[in-house]
Amino acid sequence: MRPHVFVNLAMSADGKLSTIERRQVRISGDADFRRVDLIKSQSDAIMVGIGTVLADDPSLTVKDATLRKERADDGRDENPVRIVIDSRARTPVDADILHKGPGRRIIVVSNSADPAKTALLSEYADIQVFGDERVDMSAFLEYLGTLGIRSLMVEGGGTLIWSLFAEGLVDELYTCVGNVIIGGADAPTPADGDGFINEADFPSLVLKDAKRIDDGILLCWSVKKKDGGE
Amino acid sequence: MRPHVFVNLAMSADGKLSTIERRQVRISGDADFRRVDLIKSQSDAIMVGIGTVLADDPSLTVKDATLRKERADDGRDENPVRIVIDSRARTPVDADILHKGPGRRIIVVSNSADPAKTALLSEYADIQVFGDERVDMSAFLEYLGTLGIRSLMVEGGGTLIWSLFAEGLVDELYTCVGNVIIGGADAPTPADGDGFINEADFPSLVLKDAKRIDDGILLCWSVKKKDGGE
Ligand SMILES: NC(=O)c1ccc[n+]([C@@H]2O[C@H](COP(=O)([O-])OP(=O)(O)OC[C@H]3O[C@@H](n4cnc5c(N)ncnc54)[C@H](OP(=O)(O)O)[C@@H]3O)[C@@H](O)[C@H]2O)c1
Ligand SMILES: NC(=O)c1ccc[n+]([C@@H]2O[C@H](COP(=O)([O-])OP(=O)(O)OC[C@H]3O[C@@H](n4cnc5c(N)ncnc54)[C@H](OP(=O)(O)O)[C@@H]3O)[C@@H](O)[C@H]2O)c1
Repeated sequence: MRPHVFVNLAMSADGKLSTIERRQVRISGDADFRRVDLIKSQSDAIMVGIGTVLADDPSLTVKDATLRKERADDGRDENPVRIVIDSRARTPVDADILHKGPGRRIIVVSNSADPAKTALLSEYADIQVFGDERVDMSAFLEYLGTLGIRSLMVEGGGTLIWSLFAEGLVDELYTCVGNVIIGGADAPTPADGDGFINEADFPSLVLKDAKRIDDGILLCWSVKKKDGGE
Repeated sequence: MRPHVFVNLAMSADGKLSTIERRQVRISGDADFRRVDLIKSQSDAIMVGIGTVLADDPSLTVKDATLRKERADDGRDENPVRIVIDSRARTPVDADILHKGPGRRIIVVSNSADPAKTALLSEYADIQVFGDERVDMSAFLEYLGTLGIRSLMVEGGGTLIWSLFAEGLVDELYTCVGNVIIGGADAPTPADGDGFINEADFPSLVLKDAKRIDDGILLCWSVKKKDGGE
C-alpha cells in the first residue's frame, strides 16, 4: 500500500511557484515557514523533483531543534527520509540534500540513468531504479509502502506534482497563497507538465479548511477519489 | 483620472484559467456566476483582451433581466460599455460581443492595425487608437476617465492582466479558486506575459476578504500602491 501523499507548496496570488528564471522567491512568511517545518517533522518521508534540487538546492531538513529532538526521542531519525525523483541521476554530488543533517536519502532513477553517475551518488544515498525513461511514480510509491513509510510530503516542483495528479497519486493539497503577483507565462505553477484536456479528467477537490496565515491564506484541499470518495 | 480597475477571474486550485488548448472550462459554479453578473451590472465598463474574444467569444452582457432593468431604470445602458483590447483589429466581425445585447462597444487598436479591418469593425463599435505596436493601456485608461467611466471590470485573459499589473494599473483582484486541478505548463494563468524577475517589483496585495463560494473560495485582494498606500 502506498503512503498517504500530501503536496505542500507556496504560490503567488496569480498561481506561480517562482519567477520565469525558476529562482526561489519569498512567497509566504514566518508563520507558514513554521507550519511547513512542523508538518515536515511529522512526515515519514519528503520528496522533490530534480528540477527543484537544481533550482533551489534545498536540504529538506527539519529546521527547528525541538522538533528534531522530538523525532529522536521517538526513536526516529531527526529528519524524514529525503527523496529526489531524478531519472537521469543529475543530482549534483555536492547537493545540500546529500550532506546537510543526518538521516536516510533515496535518489530514484530510471533505467536511462548513466551507471557511472549512480555509482557516484550511491556513496551518499540509496539508489532505487523504477521505470525505463522517467521514474515510474506509482511503482515507487508502492515500494515506499513496503519500507513502512505511511506519510509522504511532496514539496514540488510543478512537473513532479503534475505527474502525481495525472496518475491519481495525491491525497491532499496544501497551498499557501501569498500576497504577491509574480506573473510570467513560463513561470512554474503548482501543476505543470502536459495538463488535462477534458474536464472529465480534472481531479476534483474538497476544500477542507481555509485560514489566513502571514499576509496570505492557507487552502487545505483533499482530493476526491474517482469513485466519489475522498 | 483613470477609472477604478478591478480584475475578476476564476482559476483552478493550481492557478489555471483554462486548459492548454485555451478552451473555456467550468471552474466556478452558479453562485459565482451570479456574483460575477452582479458586479458586472455595477460596472461602468468591462474589458477583455483579443485572446479571450478569439478563445471564448464572450458577449459580456449582463445575464440577469432584473439587473439589466435596474440599469435601465437608472437611465443607463442595459450593459456596461464593452471593450476589446486588440492592437491589430483581429476581432471577428461576427463576434458575439459586437452583436448580442444593446450598449456601447469600444475596440482599442494600435497604429499597427490594418485600416481596412478597422473600417469594417467601425460599423459595430467605436474604434480607438492608442499606442504604436500594442495598445498603450495607461493612455487608454486615462481616455476612459474622460468619458466619465469610473469603474472598469477586467475579465481577462492572463496576457492583458499581466500588462495591467506590470504598469501598476490594477486596484483590486478577485479570484474565485475552484475545486479542480487543470495542470499544464502552457495553460493560461491569471498573469502571463513576461513576468517579474525581481522580488522588489512584485506588486504586493492585501487580502481584504476570503469567503467560500460554490465548492471553492473567493479571494478579494487590493493592490498596495508603490508608495505604501492601498
Ligand atoms: N513555491 C514552492 O512551494 C516551490 C516548491 C518546490 C519547487 N518550487 C519551484 O519549482 C521549480 C522547479 O520545478 P520543476 O517543475 O522545474 O521541477 P520538479 O518538479 O522539481 O522536477 C521535475 C523533474 O523530475 C524528473 N522526473 C523524473 N520522473 C518524473 C516523473 N515521473 N514525473 C515528473 N517528473 C519526473 C524530470 O527530470 P528528469 O527526466 O531529468 O528526471 C522532471 O523534469 C523551481 O523554480 C522551484 O523554485 C517552488
Ligand atoms: N477563467 C477565467 O476567468 C478567464 C477569463 C478570461 C479569459 N480566460 C481564458 O484566457 C485565455 C485567453 O487569454 P490570453 O492571455 O490568451 O489573451 P488576452 O489576455 O485575452 O488577450 C491578449 C492579447 O491582447 C492584445 N493586446 C493588445 N495590447 C495589449 C497590451 N498592452 N497588453 C496585453 N495584451 C495586449 C495582444 O494581442 P495583439 O497584439 O494581437 O493585440 C495580446 O495577445 C483563454 O483561454 C480564455 O478561456 C479565462
